Amino acid sequence: MPVKTTATGKPLDAATLRELRAIVGAEHVRHADGDVTPYARDATPLFRARPGAVVHPASTEEVAAVLKLAAARGVPVVPRGAGSNLCSATVPLEGGIVLVLTRLDRVLEISAEELLAVCQPGVTSAALADAAAAHGLLYAPDPGSRSVATIGGTVATCAGGLRGLKYGVTRNYVLGLEAVLGTGEVVRTGGRLWKDVAGYDLTRLLTGSEGTLGVITEVTLALLPAPESAGNGLAYFPTLADAGRAVTRVIAAGIVPATLEFLDARCVDAVERHARLGLRSDAGALLIFGDDGEPAAVAHRLDRMAGLCRDTGAIEVSVAGHAAESEALLAARRCTLPALSRLGTITILEDVGVPRPRIAEMVGHIEDIAERHDVTIATFGHAGDGNLHPTCVIDKGDDEAAERAHRAFGEIFRTAMRLGGTITGEHGVGAAKLPYLTERLGAAQVELQRRIKAAFDPAGILNPGKAGS
Amino acid sequence: MPVKTTATGKPLDAATLRELRAIVGAEHVRHADGDVTPYARDATPLFRARPGAVVHPASTEEVAAVLKLAAARGVPVVPRGAGSNLCSATVPLEGGIVLVLTRLDRVLEISAEELLAVCQPGVTSAALADAAAAHGLLYAPDPGSRSVATIGGTVATCAGGLRGLKYGVTRNYVLGLEAVLGTGEVVRTGGRLWKDVAGYDLTRLLTGSEGTLGVITEVTLALLPAPESAGNGLAYFPTLADAGRAVTRVIAAGIVPATLEFLDARCVDAVERHARLGLRSDAGALLIFGDDGEPAAVAHRLDRMAGLCRDTGAIEVSVAGHAAESEALLAARRCTLPALSRLGTITILEDVGVPRPRIAEMVGHIEDIAERHDVTIATFGHAGDGNLHPTCVIDKGDDEAAERAHRAFGEIFRTAMRLGGTITGEHGVGAAKLPYLTERLGAAQVELQRRIKAAFDPAGILNPGKAGS
Repeated sequence: MPVKTTATGKPLDAATLRELRAIVGAEHVRHADGDVTPYARDATPLFRARPGAVVHPASTEEVAAVLKLAAARGVPVVPRGAGSNLCSATVPLEGGIVLVLTRLDRVLEISAEELLAVCQPGVTSAALADAAAAHGLLYAPDPGSRSVATIGGTVATCAGGLRGLKYGVTRNYVLGLEAVLGTGEVVRTGGRLWKDVAGYDLTRLLTGSEGTLGVITEVTLALLPAPESAGNGLAYFPTLADAGRAVTRVIAAGIVPATLEFLDARCVDAVERHARLGLRSDAGALLIFGDDGEPAAVAHRLDRMAGLCRDTGAIEVSVAGHAAESEALLAARRCTLPALSRLGTITILEDVGVPRPRIAEMVGHIEDIAERHDVTIATFGHAGDGNLHPTCVIDKGDDEAAERAHRAFGEIFRTAMRLGGTITGEHGVGAAKLPYLTERLGAAQVELQRRIKAAFDPAGILNPGKAGS
Repeated sequence: MPVKTTATGKPLDAATLRELRAIVGAEHVRHADGDVTPYARDATPLFRARPGAVVHPASTEEVAAVLKLAAARGVPVVPRGAGSNLCSATVPLEGGIVLVLTRLDRVLEISAEELLAVCQPGVTSAALADAAAAHGLLYAPDPGSRSVATIGGTVATCAGGLRGLKYGVTRNYVLGLEAVLGTGEVVRTGGRLWKDVAGYDLTRLLTGSEGTLGVITEVTLALLPAPESAGNGLAYFPTLADAGRAVTRVIAAGIVPATLEFLDARCVDAVERHARLGLRSDAGALLIFGDDGEPAAVAHRLDRMAGLCRDTGAIEVSVAGHAAESEALLAARRCTLPALSRLGTITILEDVGVPRPRIAEMVGHIEDIAERHDVTIATFGHAGDGNLHPTCVIDKGDDEAAERAHRAFGEIFRTAMRLGGTITGEHGVGAAKLPYLTERLGAAQVELQRRIKAAFDPAGILNPGKAGS
C-alpha cells in the first residue's frame, strides 16, 4: 500500500496550548510545522500523521497534569521515546499530543546487592545496560535498536532481542512500574521483589501495552550477574531446513544457548556485498550460535554445538578462538538489516513467530509468497525462539510494489498463524498489525481488550487507533 | 481472630440445580451437606463458608455453560483445584457454586523439541513435573504443595517455590492459556511461543488473578532441559543477620543459586524435635544453599558458597558429597512446616516479602511483634528472593490467641511494606489479605483493579469478595 497519511492532525486550540505551556514550560511545547513534522512518523515506513503539538514533560507530575488536561478536553496523547518503533505504534493517527519522554532520562539506582535498576523511561536501553555493566551486572534484553531505543519504549512494546530463548524478553525483567493512567492518576505496580502477588499483574499488563493503557514514568528492572565469558560460532548449511535440524538437535542435547541466529541465502549475499566479511556464497543458510557463562562450560557447549552442526551436514563450521573473533562472527548478523536496506529506499522489516520446529517450513512459504507477489523478501531471525524477520525492500514512490508487499505480508501473517505462530514476536501491534489482530486473538478477546483499555483510559485519549481500539 | 464463617451459602434453587445437572451430568453436581462441607474451606485456617453446590465439569464447554448459566442467574462461582490455597482464595464467601476442576486432569502434550507442555488445569504440579522429567525436561516452579496443588491453581495464584531467584515463578513459565470469562466466553491467550506480543498480556494478567477474572481450562507451559546435576550445602550461623550477610556475599560474587533457604532458631529447634536429623541446637540460623547445572560448575559454585559462608562467620559448613546426602540436607527445609504444625492444632503459615538485604531486619521485627502480642512465631523462607514465611501455631478454640495472632500479622504486613516489601510473595491475596491490599497498592490501583475485574466478569460472579472486589 502507498504511504498512509491521516489528515486529522489539526492544531490544538489556543487555550489548550496555553495550559500545556503552563504545565511543562513554554519551550517544551511545540506546534510549528517544522517542529512537529519529525513526530508524524516513527521507524515504520508507510505510516504518517501530523500531531497537533509535541510536548516534552520532565516529571511524573507533569505527565499526570498533561493527561488530566487531555482527558478533560478529549485530546489524543501518544507517548513516545526514541521513535524507533517498527509497527507505527507511536504515529499519532488521530493527531493531538505526542508526549516525548526523553527528558526523563536518569538512571536512578543500580543495586548490585538487590540485582536491580531503577530508571526513568527516557534512558536508552544501551545506557541502562552500560550502567549495569559498570557494576558487573547484565541487563539481559537486547533489542536490535538498543543504542537508541528508550527503556520506556522497550517496556511499552515488551521488546525482545537476540537472547530470547535463554534469557526471555523484557517482561521477564520488569519488576515494577510507575505509570500515569488515561485519567491522570498515578499508579505504582509491583516493586523491587522477584516474588510479589499482591493484586493483578498490572506490571506485565502495562508491559507491551504500547502506550494505550498508561504512560510509563519509572521502571524497576531485574539485573543478572554479568556472565564471566561469552563465545560464538558459525555454521553454513546447504539449506535452511538443515540449519533447522541442527537447532533441533542442539535443543534436544539439553543446550539452551544465548544466541541462535539464522540468515537465509539472500541475507548472506546482501551482507557479503555490503560488508565484505568473507562469507561463503554457496550456502543455503548461515547459523550463528553462541553462549555465555563460566569459561569452561561455554567452551564445552560451543564445541558440542559445532559438533551437532557438523553431524547435521553443515558445509563449514567455525568457533571463535577469542573475544574479538567472536564479536566478528556476530557482525554478519548485526549488519543484516543495514545490508538489506541498501537494496532499495524503503525497508519493510517484518516480524512473525512460529514454533521453532517450523522455521524452515515458514521460510519456504515466505519464499513462495514473495515469488507469487513479485517482491523480494529476505528472512533472518532468532532460530532459538522462532521469531523471524522477513524483510522486503522497495523503492520510494513505487506504490505498486508497496501494494504487492502489503499483500504478500498479509499472506505471511496468515501463514504464521496457520503454523501455530503469531503476527508479531517482538515489534508489537501498533497500527500496522491491528487489521490482523482479530484473526490472531478472536473477536471475544479483542472485545475484552477494549473493555480493559476503557478501564485504564475511560476517555479513550491514550494512543487511539492502536491496540484496544 | 476466631474462625470467620459466613452465613450466605444458601442452597441453589431447584431450577438452577436441574440445569447444572443437564450440563455436567447429575452425578457431578452435589449439594447435600456432607458433600459440600469439605468445600467450605481450603488450606487457610480460620475462614469457612458453605457453598450452595459443588460442580465437577469435565470439559471447557461444560465450564463455559456453567458460567453462562451462573452469569444469567447471578450465582457466584469459585473455581478450585486441590484446595491447597493458603489465603482463603477458594473459600466460597458468598456461597454459590464451587467449580472443582480436578476431572480436567490430562497432560495433553510434552514436547522436547519445543520445550513445552500443554495440560488441563486439574493435573497436579508434581504430575506435570514428572511427565516432563520422563522426557529429560524440568518444569521449574516447585511450590511446597506441589504433590497436591493443581497446575490450574498454581497458575491462578502465580505460585512461587524454592527456586524463585534463579528460575522465577509460575508467570515466567506460562506461555498460553485457555480461559472462560465471567460471561461464559472462551478466550485463548498467548500460545506456544517465547516471543509473542500480539495484544495485551492477558496470559500474565490471568496468572495470579485467583479465579476472579476467568476459569483456566488449559495451560501451555515452558519447560527447560533438566539440569545434569544438583547439589546442596548447609551452614549454621550465630545469628540470622550473619546468614543474611553470607547471602549478600554470594550474590555479590555473581552466583545466583537455585536454592538459598533459611530457618530461624525456632524452626531449627522444631525440626530437630520432630525429625531428629542431628541438627545443631546452638545456632541462630541455618542456611541451605544449593545449585544445579553442569557437574563441575555446580561443584565449583557449592565450594565458593561454602567458602563465603565460612568467611562470614558460619559456625559449621558442610557440602553434600553425593545425591542422597544432598537430598538429606533439604529434608530439614522440607519438614519445617510439618514440624511447626505439631506445636499446636492450628498452623497459620504466612507469606511476606522484603528486599533481600532486609531479611534479617524483618525477622528481628517479627520476633519483637510476636513477643509484644504474646504469640510464638517461627520464620523460615527463601533468602534468595526475600520471601519469608512467618508461622504461628495456636490451639483450636483459643479465640484469644487467634485474635492476638491476627493483630501480630497485621503489624508484620505493615512492617514488610514499610521496608519496601509486600503483603504476599507467593500465596496470594484471597480473602485473607484483602484488608491490606489498598495499603499496598493505593486506592487508585484498587479502583483500577475493580474496573479490570468488571471487564472480564461484568456480572461479578467469579469468586466475589476476593481480589477485584
